[in-house]
Parts: sequence; C-alpha cells; structure tokens
Amino acid sequence: MTTRADGSAVVELLGALAYAELTAFDRLAEDARLAPTLAGRAALARMAAAEIAHHGRLTDRLAELGADPQAAMGPFVVALDAFHEGTRPSTWLEGLVKAYVGDGIATDFYREISAYVDPSTQALVHDAMQDVGQSEFVVKVVREAIKADERVAGRLALWGRRLVGEALSQAQQVAVERDALSSLLVGGVGARNRPSADLAELGRMFARLTDEHTRRMGRLGLAA
Amino acid sequence: MTTRADGSAVVELLGALAYAELTAFDRLAEDARLAPTLAGRAALARMAAAEIAHHGRLTDRLAELGADPQAAMGPFVVALDAFHEGTRPSTWLEGLVKAYVGDGIATDFYREISAYVDPSTQALVHDAMQDVGQSEFVVKVVREAIKADERVAGRLALWGRRLVGEALSQAQQVAVERDALSSLLVGGVGARNRPSADLAELGRMFARLTDEHTRRMGRLGLAA
Repeated sequence: MTTRADGSAVVELLGALAYAELTAFDRLAEDARLAPTLAGRAALARMAAAEIAHHGRLTDRLAELGADPQAAMGPFVVALDAFHEGTRPSTWLEGLVKAYVGDGIATDFYREISAYVDPSTQALVHDAMQDVGQSEFVVKVVREAIKADERVAGRLALWGRRLVGEALSQAQQVAVERDALSSLLVGGVGARNRPSADLAELGRMFARLTDEHTRRMGRLGLAA
Repeated sequence: MTTRADGSAVVELLGALAYAELTAFDRLAEDARLAPTLAGRAALARMAAAEIAHHGRLTDRLAELGADPQAAMGPFVVALDAFHEGTRPSTWLEGLVKAYVGDGIATDFYREISAYVDPSTQALVHDAMQDVGQSEFVVKVVREAIKADERVAGRLALWGRRLVGEALSQAQQVAVERDALSSLLVGGVGARNRPSADLAELGRMFARLTDEHTRRMGRLGLAA
C-alpha cells in the first residue's frame, strides 16, 4: 500500500491534478464575475490565484521527472472540460457550492490515490490540494443565503447532487481510459510490481468519499 | 510636487488602481482561454494571479486608511468595465498585445500620478504596478507570430491604436468626474493645499506616456 507506483502512474496522477488545477483557476475566475460585491469577486479571484500556484508546482514536478507537462495533462482535458461544461453555475451561490463541494470531492479523491505513490509525490499532492480558503468563506455566505430564504436550500441540495453525479461519471470515464492511473486503484494486469488497492479497499474508499461529501453538504446546511 | 496630496485624492488613486487590478485579473483570466497551448494558458493565468495579489495589497491599504475598499473602487467600475468591453480581444495575439500595451500605459499613468502623493503610497503604487512577467513572454510570442506571417503586424498595429484611443477616452472621462484625483494633476479650485502638476507639466506627462507607448509597440515589432 505504501510502496512506489511506477513512473507512468505518477505522471498520470500529476498530469490529471495539474489540469484539474488549471481548470479550477478558470472556473473560479469565471464564477468570480457572478459575485454580487467587489469583495466577493476578489475573494474568488484570490482562490483562483492559489489554484494556479498549485498548478505551477505540479508542472514543475512533472518537468523534474522528465515528463512534458502539456503531454501529461492532455489525456484529462476532455473529461475535466466536460465536467465543467456540464456543471456551469448559473448563480453566485451555485458557483460557491461548486467551489466547495466539487473541490472537496476532488481533494479527497486525489489524496486517496496519493496513498499509493512515493512519499515525495504524496507530499506534493497533499500540499497542492490544500484548502485555498474557500471553505470558511463559502460556508458563511451559503448559510446566510439559506437563512434569508429557505427555498435556496432545496435548490442548492439538488445542485450538489448534480455535481457529484457529474464528477463520478467523468471520473469513471477517466478510470476506464487511463490504465496506469486506474491500476493504482484496482491492480489489474501487470500490477505485480505496483502494489495497489483491491476491490474491497476501493469500496471503502468510495464510502469515505461519500461520507465526506455528506459532511460537507451538512456544513453548508444542505441535504446530501 | 513631492508633498502630500490630501486623503481623498489618495483614496481615489488607490481605489482606481485596486479596481484596475481586479479587472486586469478578470481580463487575463478570460484571455488565457484563447491560448493555443496549455502552457500559454497557464502563463496568462499566472499573470492574472499576480494582479489579484496586487489588488489585495491596495485594498488592505485602503482599509488601513479607514476607507471602504468597495466604496473607493465604486466610481471607477463603469469606466474600467467600458474600457474592457470596448477592447475585448478576439484572438490570442490581440489578448497578448492588450496585456502588454494596455498594462504598460496604465502602469506609466499611475506611476506619473503617484509622484504627487506621499512616499509610502508612492512605494505601494510602484510595487503594485510591477511587471508581472508579461513583457518578456508577450514580446517573444508576438515577434514569433509576425515572423511566421507578416500580415499579423498590420492588424496588431491597428489594434494597438484602438487600445490607446479607448484608454485615453476612458481616462478623460474619469478625470472629468473625479475632482480629487484630477486636481492632483491640474490643480483647480481649492488646490492651494494640494501641490499639483500644472498644465505644462501635464503636457510633458502625456508626451512621456506616448513615447513609452511607441517604444513598447516597437519592442513588439509594431508601428505605433
């Protein structure tokens, strides 16, 4: 469980994560414009800035490993873009819930995967996935909005479910297509040298991801 | 020339600048999506991140001065948004030229104005207006594009002129509406306690701004 994954799995992991951070930048920058105040707009813009800093550290590491960052990110462009296209917020609150819940799921997922790679990659992943300040800000604003108008809660709960559904569907597609990455999780052919999770562990992982999601929705005052 | 301007002029200057940085973030983040490569997209996103960091320092200073950052930025929203609306790049190269030439004019202008405020505000302005890395990157990419297709130069030269025209027209409008800010430059009623530039100095300032613009266009390989 704690031994090294092979190079290509690490490159795929870092590539996926690097592109995830680049799209997180884009999405936060775009959603910032839905903000009702200049302070809210700047708050989201600052989160975007933190994401692009993470992106830079991941591409630096890819380059150190001798991988071309652009090539490493390439396989994940379609799925991640499709996720964002399919979950484009139409309101400021939807954007905030997406920043919090979507990033939360992604963070938990990448952290889980990083359990199967070398310690220095693992440290980098944990670092790149640090909360960039959205949690506190989003929880405060969303709870206030629900307090002001209870109907908001129902709409945002639905939105949260849509985010999870879309995330799982895209993750599934990536897993099907990327052998090295998914073999980290489920072993498979040629996995002898790649200690990985088995199916039982995978089940537990999804249970943990779901639990964490439910907890996050709860913090927002929303039913999962 | 080097003595303190009164508080409201400083607040107006910092407010204008803070909103300029917030819109610079937006614009760079948006134009990043026109990039033909993921590396180009990340390069512009990193510039955007630097702008939002500057924004944060300016709003921090406004708060220190007892001013409400949102209120201080308010008067400049319409003019700066109009500038960006009127100069929305339709290609990656137009976006790069705007990042370089537009920010260049803005930087020179704010630095000129800061000659009339207190030294610590002046230092902050100089710092906030530091090149965030766009110059080298933009010059390289634009010169390569012109080398590959000479017709690009003519189109981008026209674009540069449109940027300047739009910038001057919006600056003029702001100057007309904001007494405190424009009195820094041209004195006017009640200017006894506010040492400021006279009209001759203003003429020289515009000459310097124009010279610098011409020099920047030249570096890109473009006629001003």
